[in-house]
Amino acid sequence: MSAWGMGIASTAAAPPALSGSGKGKKVVILGAGLAGMTAAYELGKLGYQCQVLEARGFAGGRCQTARKGFRLHELGGDAQTCVFDDGQYINHGPWRIPLHHQSTLHYTRLFNVPLEVMVNDNDHSFVYLENGGPLANKRLRPAQLKADMRGHVAELLAKSVKTNQLDQALSADDKTLLLDYLAHEGQLAGADLRYQGRSGRGYSVNPGAGLTTGTPSDPLGFRDLLASKVGKVYSAVQDYPMQNTMFQPVGGMDAIARAFEKRVGRQIRYRADVQTIRHGENKVTVSFKDTGSGKLSSIDADYCLCTLPLSVLRNIDTDFSPALKAAVKSVAYAPVGKIGLQMKRRFWEEDDHLYGGHVLTDMKAINQISLPSTGWQSKKGVLLGYYHYMTDAIEISALAPAERAEFALAAGQNIFPAYRASFDSAFSVAWHRVQYNLGGWAEWTDENRKSAYPLLLEGEGRVLLAGEHLSYLTGWQAGAIESAWQQIEKLHAKASA
Amino acid sequence: MSAWGMGIASTAAAPPALSGSGKGKKVVILGAGLAGMTAAYELGKLGYQCQVLEARGFAGGRCQTARKGFRLHELGGDAQTCVFDDGQYINHGPWRIPLHHQSTLHYTRLFNVPLEVMVNDNDHSFVYLENGGPLANKRLRPAQLKADMRGHVAELLAKSVKTNQLDQALSADDKTLLLDYLAHEGQLAGADLRYQGRSGRGYSVNPGAGLTTGTPSDPLGFRDLLASKVGKVYSAVQDYPMQNTMFQPVGGMDAIARAFEKRVGRQIRYRADVQTIRHGENKVTVSFKDTGSGKLSSIDADYCLCTLPLSVLRNIDTDFSPALKAAVKSVAYAPVGKIGLQMKRRFWEEDDHLYGGHVLTDMKAINQISLPSTGWQSKKGVLLGYYHYMTDAIEISALAPAERAEFALAAGQNIFPAYRASFDSAFSVAWHRVQYNLGGWAEWTDENRKSAYPLLLEGEGRVLLAGEHLSYLTGWQAGAIESAWQQIEKLHAKASA
Repeated sequence: MSAWGMGIASTAAAPPALSGSGKGKKVVILGAGLAGMTAAYELGKLGYQCQVLEARGFAGGRCQTARKGFRLHELGGDAQTCVFDDGQYINHGPWRIPLHHQSTLHYTRLFNVPLEVMVNDNDHSFVYLENGGPLANKRLRPAQLKADMRGHVAELLAKSVKTNQLDQALSADDKTLLLDYLAHEGQLAGADLRYQGRSGRGYSVNPGAGLTTGTPSDPLGFRDLLASKVGKVYSAVQDYPMQNTMFQPVGGMDAIARAFEKRVGRQIRYRADVQTIRHGENKVTVSFKDTGSGKLSSIDADYCLCTLPLSVLRNIDTDFSPALKAAVKSVAYAPVGKIGLQMKRRFWEEDDHLYGGHVLTDMKAINQISLPSTGWQSKKGVLLGYYHYMTDAIEISALAPAERAEFALAAGQNIFPAYRASFDSAFSVAWHRVQYNLGGWAEWTDENRKSAYPLLLEGEGRVLLAGEHLSYLTGWQAGAIESAWQQIEKLHAKASA
Repeated sequence: MSAWGMGIASTAAAPPALSGSGKGKKVVILGAGLAGMTAAYELGKLGYQCQVLEARGFAGGRCQTARKGFRLHELGGDAQTCVFDDGQYINHGPWRIPLHHQSTLHYTRLFNVPLEVMVNDNDHSFVYLENGGPLANKRLRPAQLKADMRGHVAELLAKSVKTNQLDQALSADDKTLLLDYLAHEGQLAGADLRYQGRSGRGYSVNPGAGLTTGTPSDPLGFRDLLASKVGKVYSAVQDYPMQNTMFQPVGGMDAIARAFEKRVGRQIRYRADVQTIRHGENKVTVSFKDTGSGKLSSIDADYCLCTLPLSVLRNIDTDFSPALKAAVKSVAYAPVGKIGLQMKRRFWEEDDHLYGGHVLTDMKAINQISLPSTGWQSKKGVLLGYYHYMTDAIEISALAPAERAEFALAAGQNIFPAYRASFDSAFSVAWHRVQYNLGGWAEWTDENRKSAYPLLLEGEGRVLLAGEHLSYLTGWQAGAIESAWQQIEKLHAKASA
């Protein structure tokens, strides 16, 4: 690799290569989310006899897609049944697969799950800030903000270089090279290197046929940009997990859950709500209740891999040590809310020429409006009307589904004139109110990464834990998969010892 | 629109709304490229009787896709027949549809041509410069270059602000706001605002499960970046036509040509090679030779819309005025070469985690290696091995097809270890050697935009001209379409007068 330089070590691009056999050994896996199904699939290949207990009637955990007929009854809330048109959907759980998540991509490749690009970066989208000072309540575009802020800054720095204010820091050669770079970066014009706008920020009239040469647009002023702080919305590069190329499965994220289920579904016992976990020197016993009949059963196994969210596990009767129980309880889960709004017409494409990407806003409890990266130029579409966390999520989740939709519509109407008039139907989720999830993802503090995390990673006796919560990729499917890979390696080592 | 601010005026998002009728009037259209077929489609709706003369056996002009069985015989060169596997292809003509090209998108929408995202921007791709000074011959990544160059620059400017060197240019408030922005833009750390790398430039070990927190990578040095000039590869924002979201038709660009052909194919006379154009007060007469039988025919019409490239038109016997003839001859056409390389294995995805986008290089006559934005994670793929212009294109086009492939393979091998070993077959084009095109696109100089351009836009008598060459979108399909829209409006005005 080094001959070609700069290869990035991928810690987990493939499952661990395990030798030996698990024949004759029984593993009970709690939860048929991606961690549980990954474990069942990989352990099954080694000969282990796996039994997965899943409280729901379907597998996937948070890897869900809401489409026509999908039902959700939040705890203490109203029941919702999705009434989107055929072919329309919202990925109300995970919705993005970054190129860096080779573990997730390992399975989409292995299982032939067709992917399409998820547009996660759209310089033509809008930024709309209520608290944007002199630029408040305007539909600004990322391309404008980047071009203008970086242009003004390049001009300012060029000026200090040219007036010899940086002579102590730079050699004469460096100065020449830096001015050359700044002129390029900011597209500075003239001998005095002034920023006067550029085509990348957009035209007031686009170039076209005949004499339509393209009419330049005026840059936003440096002072306004500084005072508004909107230049801070974008940084030099995207955060690592958010970079191009971003993917989504064609037809909905649950294609991944279905692909796993196709391969390990026969080992899944559905509607099995875990009640107790007991483990001793020779076996693990898990009892569960059938959510339909209410009948209690139990299962014995050599090992248990528990992939339940800690927010769920904390309510289960276990014989874990007090330290491990305390560790389980110490981890907070993020309140997270999302809403899908089916629109009669793709006004964002037709009227505003926005194709995917995110409209960013500081409007209360909205955070972003995300446009679908599928069904380009078709009639209808489902957009994400809000995606919020923490206190915002708690507040909005207290509303009835229709009230949440009304809240989202009122906000979106500030940005898109056709928003409310185009509305068809909504489907919303508040993950902290969803039974068997009780939160979006594990929210680690530095403190309990040090105290609780090592205990949870270690497990106890014949019980091991896995899931996104036991990774540095919390909230991502890759975290669940890679954690499962790590823990089955441990399990296999124990079983082979 | 103004209530929502910042709407960009789209000069040409839809064809001109023409009233009246063309019934009983005959138009001969020369060339069944996108300009010619757009004119035939729109004039047909008005009742005009259109006859399109096309020298080839198929429509589309430069809107072509090479797939299994596609044949090309360059002038004075060897014949090539594409032997890619079924489902594999290269768009050797136009290959991108920018979001801003609403005219092209008008027809993909109207004709239900399915689109997919063309990944035109990939921060994870490679930049490989032979002349990169201290950073030469390394696989650098755009994310690294952007993060590090902007980080170092932000640090430098922050230092001058903090040491009061810019007090004349900035108020105290501005200074505070600017430092805040720079800390964000460059992700500067500590009270002294130092750039020390960032996650966006990539990790040396990615975050993962368990204790894999993610190992930071070291930034490239400011001096090395300055001396290498690679910081100049990327600018504050993408050039306007290159911005996200970029599209391509599913299955190949010629889907657009086929969609037009389906609607106007019955008006196209194929294998009709135009020989002469004569126009008088009452009619236009065009003679043409059947390229199969060699038989000469001629056709009379009320008007002629000539969409042939000027590089072709200049060789046709016309009775244009000397001034118009001189204008036609004055326009140079760009020599352009592209090569598609079918690879047995998508090593760029499997080994390097590159999904689409362009590898940029200064290697002689390569310019870029572009990775396919379709067939994600499948077995084979066709990448673009070079895309060059002007003198490079002239030099490489003199080679036989197999030699061109060898040239491309030797270069690509410098960047990708699996390049040559994965090679299956190639298909190359040198547009300046393709009969009926004789160049990639019109190359206007400022000088003849002033002198020749107005004459060509005006046409003469009953003859009007159209095509990408009569736009400020040269080389783009949108230029051809919008020019056709503009010229049929003129034609209709003349005919209705």
